[in-house]
Amino acid sequence: MDAKGKYGVALVGCGIVGGGTARVLTEDRIYLQERTGIPLYLKYIVDRNYDNARAIGIPEELYEEDYNKVLEDPDVFLVIELIGGLTVAKKMMTKALKAGKHVVTANKALMAHYGPELFALARKEKVTIGFEASCGGGIPIVKALTDGLLANKIEAIFGIVNGTCNHILTEMTDKGESYQEALKSAQKAGLAEADPTLDVSGMDSAHKLTILGSLAFGERVDLDSIPVEGIDTLDLYDIKTGRELGYIMKLLAIGQQTKKGLALSVAPAFVHTSHPLARVSGAFNAVSVYGHAVGHTMYMGRGAGSSPTASAVVADIIATALGITPKAFESLSFWPDRTEKAKQLAPEDLTSRYYLRFMVKDRPGTVARISSILSDNGISITSLLQKEEARDTIPLVMTTHQAREGAITQALNKIEGLEETASPPIYIRIIEEHPESVI
Amino acid sequence: MDAKGKYGVALVGCGIVGGGTARVLTEDRIYLQERTGIPLYLKYIVDRNYDNARAIGIPEELYEEDYNKVLEDPDVFLVIELIGGLTVAKKMMTKALKAGKHVVTANKALMAHYGPELFALARKEKVTIGFEASCGGGIPIVKALTDGLLANKIEAIFGIVNGTCNHILTEMTDKGESYQEALKSAQKAGLAEADPTLDVSGMDSAHKLTILGSLAFGERVDLDSIPVEGIDTLDLYDIKTGRELGYIMKLLAIGQQTKKGLALSVAPAFVHTSHPLARVSGAFNAVSVYGHAVGHTMYMGRGAGSSPTASAVVADIIATALGITPKAFESLSFWPDRTEKAKQLAPEDLTSRYYLRFMVKDRPGTVARISSILSDNGISITSLLQKEEARDTIPLVMTTHQAREGAITQALNKIEGLEETASPPIYIRIIEEHPESVI
Repeated sequence: MDAKGKYGVALVGCGIVGGGTARVLTEDRIYLQERTGIPLYLKYIVDRNYDNARAIGIPEELYEEDYNKVLEDPDVFLVIELIGGLTVAKKMMTKALKAGKHVVTANKALMAHYGPELFALARKEKVTIGFEASCGGGIPIVKALTDGLLANKIEAIFGIVNGTCNHILTEMTDKGESYQEALKSAQKAGLAEADPTLDVSGMDSAHKLTILGSLAFGERVDLDSIPVEGIDTLDLYDIKTGRELGYIMKLLAIGQQTKKGLALSVAPAFVHTSHPLARVSGAFNAVSVYGHAVGHTMYMGRGAGSSPTASAVVADIIATALGITPKAFESLSFWPDRTEKAKQLAPEDLTSRYYLRFMVKDRPGTVARISSILSDNGISITSLLQKEEARDTIPLVMTTHQAREGAITQALNKIEGLEETASPPIYIRIIEEHPESVI
Repeated sequence: MDAKGKYGVALVGCGIVGGGTARVLTEDRIYLQERTGIPLYLKYIVDRNYDNARAIGIPEELYEEDYNKVLEDPDVFLVIELIGGLTVAKKMMTKALKAGKHVVTANKALMAHYGPELFALARKEKVTIGFEASCGGGIPIVKALTDGLLANKIEAIFGIVNGTCNHILTEMTDKGESYQEALKSAQKAGLAEADPTLDVSGMDSAHKLTILGSLAFGERVDLDSIPVEGIDTLDLYDIKTGRELGYIMKLLAIGQQTKKGLALSVAPAFVHTSHPLARVSGAFNAVSVYGHAVGHTMYMGRGAGSSPTASAVVADIIATALGITPKAFESLSFWPDRTEKAKQLAPEDLTSRYYLRFMVKDRPGTVARISSILSDNGISITSLLQKEEARDTIPLVMTTHQAREGAITQALNKIEGLEETASPPIYIRIIEEHPESVI
């Protein structure tokens, strides 16, 4: 591990993922070199404190507090940015790119907020940014979109891209826990942060949709253009009722190409049990990608965690060293610094099936009045569920055929105004198998 | 589409997959060039007859009967081999490689039988062979193993890699059809050949395991070293009974690294309904890959068909043109012309859970005698199912804890010799979630 090799790397940020990456790079160094022909070696670890590095036994001689010294070292061909967050990470990545170092990162927030700007800088400096680890942890989904599926026009992506939310929803579905109970057990198991807002609000999923959507559709997806709903306001009643009707609740990041533009959203949705995404449980992530030639493909794996994310980070380093990432970055036209802002479908023009739930006072004619408002708005019902209950206010559940979201919200506004309606109606998208255009 | 571009390709064999490939290359030519920066164009189609090419409207001026002329054309940088079979395909691929042309193929039989020899020739001639389309149709599984998962030591792969078998098994499981009924309906639907032997015997899956296993484990898997069982002798009774016990029957291609060597097999197996592979239905394929860092990842998609396979073929062409395939072929050490023959686990040393079914005469003490033979061989039972039936010969079903396959066959031989046993006992592996070594 001396200074003779040209493939020295510097790791900035040695927390959970950084620690896993440091372990793979040190413990598997010989294996990786034999396997790939690249004499990769970890030369520096830069952090504010080295407690975690020490705890997992990373040699002290790698610790370096002077980031400038690292960037001046010609043996370092690549900087691994794993500190997370926006401000400091952006500064450090910018410095690395300007110093002519390739960068590999797992930072989805950074790539979602500043991807186009950072890609443009990397291009100017003739280096690259690897960001496989920013979406879906160890799942090689970025590689699928930038390599394996290159021959396709991507028609839709549906992603379970937040393991915390998927774990919470799985517990609610399988064990009947309330959102609060499931959140607490996820926190205990280390699967949710003390402040889980970024995850449960859907914002983390939106970061990933920004990144994946831009690559998939060859149009730049801007983070602030995505309508985002989280799982923190979900009612267990709907999860249970949906389950009875054959649907599993998932937080989905969705991008669908339509004739009128790209439909983007992050929201809880019901997925039919026969769809492979319905069976992606616990902390696992999965992304369904529909291409005009390949049809439906799905990629599943651990969306977070130390070593799964390290798997993606190290694969990116190798692909950069092999010249594969540079070649793709140079040739392919759909990196978000090269594309125009996506032409988006107006949310009210989205067509989907819906699950509707009304809380109504148990009076004669209520179902008729609600049904006729839906019908007046062109919404047709596929199923209706009202159980006999000895309460004044009872839930009335309906599922619809394909309907415009604009029609749904319009109808629901009217229904909310009815005297019989006790609380605002709930509507949740139902996702069925996306049509495949394979020949 | 004149001779000025350097990225002319020649398509040899314009059948189902060839036709799909020709369509993507012609209809999407502009799109592909804009997307990838590569001015790819289809210059020749070589075939014995052009009926299919005509039927799908491929321009006549592309038809060329003189293969030598094609190989002498300096504008052709790559030959797409899609004729299938062994003898002619091998001759034509060899000629192409010797003429200094890159090759892309969907021919699993050829790659399984002659991969190492052909890779060695390609290396000598400084060209490459792309074979993504040979395994799992449009699923970028070869790319996952040679790129996205590079940082891993692969611990196991479990693949549903034959769509015909998966379709037949899905029909048997979901509709209760017999093997013969399901085969006939698959043939009617164009999902099975008139002579389905290669598929239903498991041999096609063995071809794919040869290819994927060699890449995954970095040891050369020889086709003739894989024990192969097909689905053609399966009894609907076992599929139904397994289903009651919570298992779905799948034909699996399995490679597992163990301390004593690589355990390879193609055989019908019971997959627990909670495993994502259990939900891969109909003509879909999927491969679960377990890596020491990434844990469990799964890749799903259409394993055959015109345009899904074309998706993989065209992606390979682009990766070759971009220089990505050549770089990987040059640098990575685990191509099967560079590795040693896999050290294999003796089949009798394989440890697994098993489903056992005995056909026994309904006499007192039978269960006790069978159980004690199992117990004498160190096999312990997890469940036992015997239904009340008014017949002389009745099925007795058991599932076991982990047991050595050698112990199972030894015990079953003894049980077969019992006077109460009416026909040879059946044993089928039960696949549970493979342990993950993620940190």
